[in-house]
Amino acid sequence: MHILILGAAGMVGRKFLERLARDGHLGGKAVAKVTAHDVVAPAKPAGAAFAFEAHTGDIAQAGAAAALLTGAPDVILHLAAIVSGEAEADFDKGYRINLDGTRLLFEAIRAMPGYHPRVVFTSSIAVFGAPFPEAIGDEFFTTPLTSYGTQKAIGELLLADYSRRGIFDGVGIRLPTICVRPGAPNKAASGFFSNIIREPMSGKEAVLPVSDEVMHWHASPRSAVGFLVHAATMDTGPLGWRRNLTMPGLAATVGEQIEALRKVAGEKAVKLIRREPDETIIRIVAGWPRNFSAKRAESFGFKAEKSFEEIVRVHLEDELGGKLGV
Amino acid sequence: MHILILGAAGMVGRKFLERLARDGHLGGKAVAKVTAHDVVAPAKPAGAAFAFEAHTGDIAQAGAAAALLTGAPDVILHLAAIVSGEAEADFDKGYRINLDGTRLLFEAIRAMPGYHPRVVFTSSIAVFGAPFPEAIGDEFFTTPLTSYGTQKAIGELLLADYSRRGIFDGVGIRLPTICVRPGAPNKAASGFFSNIIREPMSGKEAVLPVSDEVMHWHASPRSAVGFLVHAATMDTGPLGWRRNLTMPGLAATVGEQIEALRKVAGEKAVKLIRREPDETIIRIVAGWPRNFSAKRAESFGFKAEKSFEEIVRVHLEDELGGKLGV
Repeated sequence: MHILILGAAGMVGRKFLERLARDGHLGGKAVAKVTAHDVVAPAKPAGAAFAFEAHTGDIAQAGAAAALLTGAPDVILHLAAIVSGEAEADFDKGYRINLDGTRLLFEAIRAMPGYHPRVVFTSSIAVFGAPFPEAIGDEFFTTPLTSYGTQKAIGELLLADYSRRGIFDGVGIRLPTICVRPGAPNKAASGFFSNIIREPMSGKEAVLPVSDEVMHWHASPRSAVGFLVHAATMDTGPLGWRRNLTMPGLAATVGEQIEALRKVAGEKAVKLIRREPDETIIRIVAGWPRNFSAKRAESFGFKAEKSFEEIVRVHLEDELGGKLGV
Repeated sequence: MHILILGAAGMVGRKFLERLARDGHLGGKAVAKVTAHDVVAPAKPAGAAFAFEAHTGDIAQAGAAAALLTGAPDVILHLAAIVSGEAEADFDKGYRINLDGTRLLFEAIRAMPGYHPRVVFTSSIAVFGAPFPEAIGDEFFTTPLTSYGTQKAIGELLLADYSRRGIFDGVGIRLPTICVRPGAPNKAASGFFSNIIREPMSGKEAVLPVSDEVMHWHASPRSAVGFLVHAATMDTGPLGWRRNLTMPGLAATVGEQIEALRKVAGEKAVKLIRREPDETIIRIVAGWPRNFSAKRAESFGFKAEKSFEEIVRVHLEDELGGKLGV
């Protein structure tokens, strides 16, 4: 089996590659080759037995997508995107990569007669825009409040239509906020959801810019990789032409996050959280979806954590080798 | 006031032009000029006191949209589209005109600094795909089952994002099936909804290919023009960034349509309907939306007929000068 990953150097892409290297197969089929693309060179994961081809470049450039499809990969994971803040700051760049780049990939597949790969497209809960119901159901409409969310919603529509037309076999997955994000604190407005867990677990301070009542929708990096694996291997027949699914996740308040941290890492860790309200972040976060009812994806076998404590423990196991630093 | 109409030679465009000629104003502002575009030359409506400029051509060609924006029209009605059947038969043409054409128009507006026109985009109930609830509400998701519906749903997303970004002031209106369509019977799968009223009222036979129980969502051509006028002149503030609205309409079964015909045109007219079941049309129609709850548009002042008898009487007044031909 040959797998193509666009956006392979990102956090989710890297974790997916690590899992592939560990498993050696995808859905029971041995992985012979991975083609990995990103704007910076993706690294071959340690211990991988498969052939690995790294590509860098701009997916919206003429011919780029066709070149990546050399060898007709069986599965394509399209994780590449200009993220929310940048797509909002740079209108042209966001539309060029997130809309045109996606469409060019789909068109390059269409240009190969008889080729019918599985395409997994990572969408986002940013396709939804406030005001929201208590929990956003599977049939709620997409009224994004960012250009990024708009571009993802358009990608979903294209994915469904190209699937319906028999061009490829697509599955769109709307990822929750990934928590605990490994690595250094970043400046994303959502960064604090991870920072307040990750940093204290390593004995470092973290800033909490919102109140304990703020609720958000989370899944661990391990679950995100699980979503990709399942989307790449599932039977798509039962989906019909409704190819885009809100992934399951866990709605937790910041207070519940802190309680989970206390259980796993103790009071000393919790003391490292410094409350420093930030009006800008408070306002941004207020417009975000908080809670979902992702019954459809669950009915098709997608699984996420059931408590925030589980999410904290996944971080402890997968990133800290089971050892607390506090 | 200067108005630009794309798709001005179509049925709705022509009726809108006739109304403009009759009224002489739009929302109380005198109409000085109309720029009218279509693939065939739009005709100046009889009695129009405004300047009239007809354009023909391909809106997806480089520079076409910019040329149409000469003089910076205050209101733009974007009614142009490759229709459902053709967009399904010709994948490239549908995406080129319905998606690229729309985006190029929006981009041409964006390229004019300080310009901020009202843009009215006619979308369609084809953005929805079965299975449906009993009545489709304002927050139901868009999972189109045609490429046309996909392209319209994408147009809606772009319209909302360009409005949010301050590029123009957009309103998207999802039209019901227009009934009674004037003119000759056409081959559209939905044609019979109009044929079974229009033809008997002129003493001609009409074929009914489905059962009396089939329910559908209708509004008269007069209402459609009313939607356009209201969308072009309404206060858009209360819409927020949810710029796309399902227009009000009337859910009626074929049996109710026939009863209305009987009331207005008598038993002699009803006898001209020949029942001739067509499995293909029965199957196509079964996948179409039947009924909506269009509360949001109603709350913003959009109005349609309340009974199918009203729809029949509108046809009698507007198309037959009040005189039955049966």
